Amino acid sequence: MSLLDTAIAALHARTFYAAFPENPSPDVYGADADAQGRARFEAQRGQRFTELLQGDGAGWAGQEESPYEQAPLGVQYPYFAPDTLVANAQAAFDAWRKLRPARRAALLADALEGMKSRFFDIAYATMHTTGQAFMMSFQASGPHAADRALEAIAAGLEEQTRFPETATWEKNMGKYTLALHKTWRAVPKGVAVVVGCSTFPTWNTVPGMFASLVTGNPVIVKPHPGAVLPIAIVVAEVQKVLVAAGLSAHICQLGVDADDRLIAKDLCENPAVKIIDYTGGAAFGEYVESLPGKTVFTEKTGVNSILLDSCPDLDKVAQNLAFSVSLYSGQMCTAPQNIFVPAAGVQVGDALVPYDDVVQKLAAAVQGLAQNPKAAPHVLGAIQNPATLARVQGLALAGSREALAPATYAHPQFANARTCAPAIYEVEAAQIEQFSQELFGPVLLVIKTENTQQSIRLAAQLAREHGAISCGAYTTDDTIKEQIMDEMSLAGTPVSFNLVGGIYVNQNAGFSDFHVTGGNPAGNASITNPEFVIKRFTWVGFREMA
Amino acid sequence: MSLLDTAIAALHARTFYAAFPENPSPDVYGADADAQGRARFEAQRGQRFTELLQGDGAGWAGQEESPYEQAPLGVQYPYFAPDTLVANAQAAFDAWRKLRPARRAALLADALEGMKSRFFDIAYATMHTTGQAFMMSFQASGPHAADRALEAIAAGLEEQTRFPETATWEKNMGKYTLALHKTWRAVPKGVAVVVGCSTFPTWNTVPGMFASLVTGNPVIVKPHPGAVLPIAIVVAEVQKVLVAAGLSAHICQLGVDADDRLIAKDLCENPAVKIIDYTGGAAFGEYVESLPGKTVFTEKTGVNSILLDSCPDLDKVAQNLAFSVSLYSGQMCTAPQNIFVPAAGVQVGDALVPYDDVVQKLAAAVQGLAQNPKAAPHVLGAIQNPATLARVQGLALAGSREALAPATYAHPQFANARTCAPAIYEVEAAQIEQFSQELFGPVLLVIKTENTQQSIRLAAQLAREHGAISCGAYTTDDTIKEQIMDEMSLAGTPVSFNLVGGIYVNQNAGFSDFHVTGGNPAGNASITNPEFVIKRFTWVGFREMA
Repeated sequence: MSLLDTAIAALHARTFYAAFPENPSPDVYGADADAQGRARFEAQRGQRFTELLQGDGAGWAGQEESPYEQAPLGVQYPYFAPDTLVANAQAAFDAWRKLRPARRAALLADALEGMKSRFFDIAYATMHTTGQAFMMSFQASGPHAADRALEAIAAGLEEQTRFPETATWEKNMGKYTLALHKTWRAVPKGVAVVVGCSTFPTWNTVPGMFASLVTGNPVIVKPHPGAVLPIAIVVAEVQKVLVAAGLSAHICQLGVDADDRLIAKDLCENPAVKIIDYTGGAAFGEYVESLPGKTVFTEKTGVNSILLDSCPDLDKVAQNLAFSVSLYSGQMCTAPQNIFVPAAGVQVGDALVPYDDVVQKLAAAVQGLAQNPKAAPHVLGAIQNPATLARVQGLALAGSREALAPATYAHPQFANARTCAPAIYEVEAAQIEQFSQELFGPVLLVIKTENTQQSIRLAAQLAREHGAISCGAYTTDDTIKEQIMDEMSLAGTPVSFNLVGGIYVNQNAGFSDFHVTGGNPAGNASITNPEFVIKRFTWVGFREMA
Repeated sequence: MSLLDTAIAALHARTFYAAFPENPSPDVYGADADAQGRARFEAQRGQRFTELLQGDGAGWAGQEESPYEQAPLGVQYPYFAPDTLVANAQAAFDAWRKLRPARRAALLADALEGMKSRFFDIAYATMHTTGQAFMMSFQASGPHAADRALEAIAAGLEEQTRFPETATWEKNMGKYTLALHKTWRAVPKGVAVVVGCSTFPTWNTVPGMFASLVTGNPVIVKPHPGAVLPIAIVVAEVQKVLVAAGLSAHICQLGVDADDRLIAKDLCENPAVKIIDYTGGAAFGEYVESLPGKTVFTEKTGVNSILLDSCPDLDKVAQNLAFSVSLYSGQMCTAPQNIFVPAAGVQVGDALVPYDDVVQKLAAAVQGLAQNPKAAPHVLGAIQNPATLARVQGLALAGSREALAPATYAHPQFANARTCAPAIYEVEAAQIEQFSQELFGPVLLVIKTENTQQSIRLAAQLAREHGAISCGAYTTDDTIKEQIMDEMSLAGTPVSFNLVGGIYVNQNAGFSDFHVTGGNPAGNASITNPEFVIKRFTWVGFREMA
């Protein structure tokens, strides 16, 4: 079975499938892969990025800084005016759309093989733009992103080939048979723009990028100015495959901008741009969603909840949650923010653990992880944006109680790293305005509720009104479990139940988890469900006398 | 194979499938079916419609008039305030959404059997509200509509059951295997509203209505005040099945309004309404599409083109086109409006038929049909809205030449029928403002172009800018044919080539033709492609330790 057939089967089976191994060991990727990738990354510092095949820009731009060094990376990228990017894409459209879907999918799968050969460069580039620890940088920006891209290619190929291309339609008219020859074409919508974010520069960009490409749309990738290099390498690998196949590199362009000449709005508002994928803050996301005549896919902000009701072992729960909130210092869109705990406490086996003890256990687990020098750097990483650190350090939630102060930790490799371990604040359930907005970064709120019923009600309300991408629940009561599933499903929020050990609420698996449901304000799209690819093309039918 | 399995298979095969026979003969529907249906319709005149099981309204409303009699039907329907309808729907939501998709689909298929038993009542009700001739009234509002409804049920059932409901996800972690039990639910979005039109009260309403219902959403059907009875009968049949199954009739309500108390905007803007299907004029359609936070499916207006390039037999083409423009007096959304003819004429075999001769042949064919008393009543029917007749009779297109004046014809059965046969005007290609808007009703424009290249360019431009639902093309040149397919596909417009004899550009078949592509301003949806059902629910996943 080919890679693409396997990927389509995986989409349908929803069982584990990883086309790209997540283990960066030499056994898997070769003895020199890490060293070579690192060397390529180091050689790129302070230099112009010249791997793109899309022609000369009107100038150069680049402002990335390493959160580990708090110093500029010094990489410069060719700058193209938005009109130039769109005109290039339009000129490349015809050749790309006229390829058959299977041919496009095969070329894009080849590009992922090229990306695989760059997983280590991408990992170091991700570390030094996002602040992720090395392991997450490797896994999220490399194999997991490539799996997500493959998933989008597979879904797009399947939807375009799901119905017969031709059919003979015969209707018995009594005295004669009416026969029509019918054909259908999956017609791509036009120029696509993908606007990336600063924290997951490839993982959040490749689904929309490859979904638009496989359905025949030329793509302009507009990365966040703070995290360009990881996705620039991916675009370069796509362009290599395109040019080798005799196609234009303008089918997939990189459109870099900088704070002094932002291009996202100009791109999105260009009448020739028909499809927009966006990951980032709610304000720009809602602006993109409001643009008339565009097909828009967004992943915005959300307020993710944990519901603590009952469990067999509270220590395991605290350890699991401590890891979830500490992973990448809470800078994941799936990171929990609000932990709802009943005032009477949490039922643990036959005992009721009082509320204060629950908070103490959580705080101890979070602090223990942050103070463990062997674990902290690998879990917490660094803070991408200085503004995030300033906000967390200056956070003042009226009426709250500080259960754990934000704390920097010393990174063993990078003395100048911008670090911060999660702070924990206790809030009363009545103070909903304190916990109903996203507090991006390492901040955890414990909300004392009347009971689990109120916890569920509040979590569902927040998800409906402010969005949510994940929810974790701990309960040993099947009735409460079903109630949580029902209420949170109506709020469009997936729920992970009773996670302990090595699996965390933040993690979403390709080919198995729909990431973001599209069913609440956290986003209007879901990767990779059929809608994510179907809306990128139009079925048009033709009929003639047979 | 069950009816639903057969319907799903038909969707995928795209070959002819008619679950409901379109032939109203006694052999098919029984010797007394016609007489009984007619008797039920006659008995309903001047009476309150009491078949609904949705409770007592706040009053009664009804303003339908027969285009054949130009007199009120006198049927009164219970009137419910929009807030009441929405509150009823919300209260009915839980029981309906908690049924399994297969159960909902089976109940809805049963309701179509109930509808089948009413095809003749529906036919007479359609005649005397829309002005369609009897045969079209029977076929379009009865079997063809039921096929479209079945198609929506089948597509909705398939999309909800396409992926496994549960999966065990196992990941080898080296020392141990991580196992998660995963489940997914297709979660309906909430209250749905379907706003109907005056010309096709069931055919255009049932796809959205049954698509929302099969995906678990309670539906409020808001018919056009001028064409209520046909869809009221369908809603009553759905309610019968619901109540017989112990369910609430409020799962599918009829929300009738009248010109002095319109409710469509109040319904659409109600925050609990999540899904809107709309058929009708562009202004209201664009308003509905602009409502934030709603899932909206529209079919609006369009400007449909015919491209005349070359053919083997121009008389057959003229006959075919005359029928297409005369069918239901041009009041179909798929009816051709603009016929593009090169100034040099049309190539017919080895001869070039001059432009003027082409116009003359078309005018003669249209006039011949209108003046044939055995054919005209059955093809042209009557004009639904007096405003349509007034507009056609008063049409003054600056710079145009009248090739055929609008003409009433005497209906043999209904002396007072509001009739009008198509008028034909000639326009120059440069006068684009004269032919770039929809002239709803029996109006045909012949546009003299420089050549077929200009014809194609104009037809595609009109479709892109103003929308189009159909296109007919006559060419014997394969290069031109491919060019038409390519240009019109980019304009999101299906094309029928070289139709002569008993098949017409206006006709769209269930299970085979996507009606409206969603790819141009004529509408944002297509019945019934997967998107038409997928967007009515959200996939939400749940995970727990296995």
